[in-house]
Amino acid sequence: MKEQEICDLLKTYLDEERYTHTLGVRDCAVRLAGRYGVDIDKARLAGLLHDCAKCLSKESMMSKMREAGYELGRGIFQNEALMHGPAGAVVARQVFGVQDPEILSAIECHTTGKKNMSTLDKIIYLADIIEPNRDYPGVDELRAAAMEDLDKAVLLGLRRGIERVLATNRYLHPRTIEAWNDMLSTQKNVDRGN
Amino acid sequence: MKEQEICDLLKTYLDEERYTHTLGVRDCAVRLAGRYGVDIDKARLAGLLHDCAKCLSKESMMSKMREAGYELGRGIFQNEALMHGPAGAVVARQVFGVQDPEILSAIECHTTGKKNMSTLDKIIYLADIIEPNRDYPGVDELRAAAMEDLDKAVLLGLRRGIERVLATNRYLHPRTIEAWNDMLSTQKNVDRGN
Repeated sequence: MKEQEICDLLKTYLDEERYTHTLGVRDCAVRLAGRYGVDIDKARLAGLLHDCAKCLSKESMMSKMREAGYELGRGIFQNEALMHGPAGAVVARQVFGVQDPEILSAIECHTTGKKNMSTLDKIIYLADIIEPNRDYPGVDELRAAAMEDLDKAVLLGLRRGIERVLATNRYLHPRTIEAWNDMLSTQKNVDRGN
Repeated sequence: MKEQEICDLLKTYLDEERYTHTLGVRDCAVRLAGRYGVDIDKARLAGLLHDCAKCLSKESMMSKMREAGYELGRGIFQNEALMHGPAGAVVARQVFGVQDPEILSAIECHTTGKKNMSTLDKIIYLADIIEPNRDYPGVDELRAAAMEDLDKAVLLGLRRGIERVLATNRYLHPRTIEAWNDMLSTQKNVDRGN
């Protein structure tokens, strides 16, 4: 598919606000890919499609995930916020014809993070939370960090994300904790208590 | 063993500061047990022994845990802060002759928490962080919550604990996240974002 075709199809999946966010993520992902030597076209496509399942109903997400073989047994993770990444990877494959496992991985883990994130995974994770339409306390610090040191920025993003989840009494996804521990273990110059 | 014998033996395991903390946890656990209808003697013994492995070397903790069949494969969890609970349950059994699985459980999970915590588990978890020698911003709020609503206090304690771990760039134990998600799922009257 050409980008225009993808965008036209995407508009039938997303509401206007989500589509605007999507274009922000695409552009931000391209900029980060240039900075960190990642394939620009992959970053562009992953950015465009990262939220393609975001506006689906909970039932649609669950059915997409079941089709793709996900286990949905544990009730607490059957919520839209935690499911739209994995469901999005299924839609990207089935509807948009994406086969590249690196792009599918970046879409799948863009909300929760995961262990052993690739550079593309990290770029989409960050682009999602720092694209120009995002506005929250600390976003400019995160934007600056993303251009300076990708891993430190991901850690900062994970910390902020976990703190927000705690403050709003939401469930913490085990993959987010795996991402935190994994990223931490690769950092040499970090003040650490244990 | 009588309590005096336990205390005499415990003093050979703990430094003075840790012993003082231990007596604080014992008394606090007894108070909470009275408040929530838990066996006072069990709370007393679990409080006394919760930190019995705290002053052992890392190597001793690891060897105790291996003896008891723990898997220590994953490097990031081989640190004293995360190991002294499980190692303590082994010492409590082997050295202090404790057989009661409820007491051993409370010792084992007193730092990390776990899924399906019993009332005794919750009492020891909280007593450890609110006993009178503890002094940090928010401790009085936690003390008041502990006497008012045990589950809400545990959630508050878990949130504070996770936030501290994040702020000091330390590893998050998966059991702590399981405890958070599990406790959250049992709370009916909590503002929740998902």
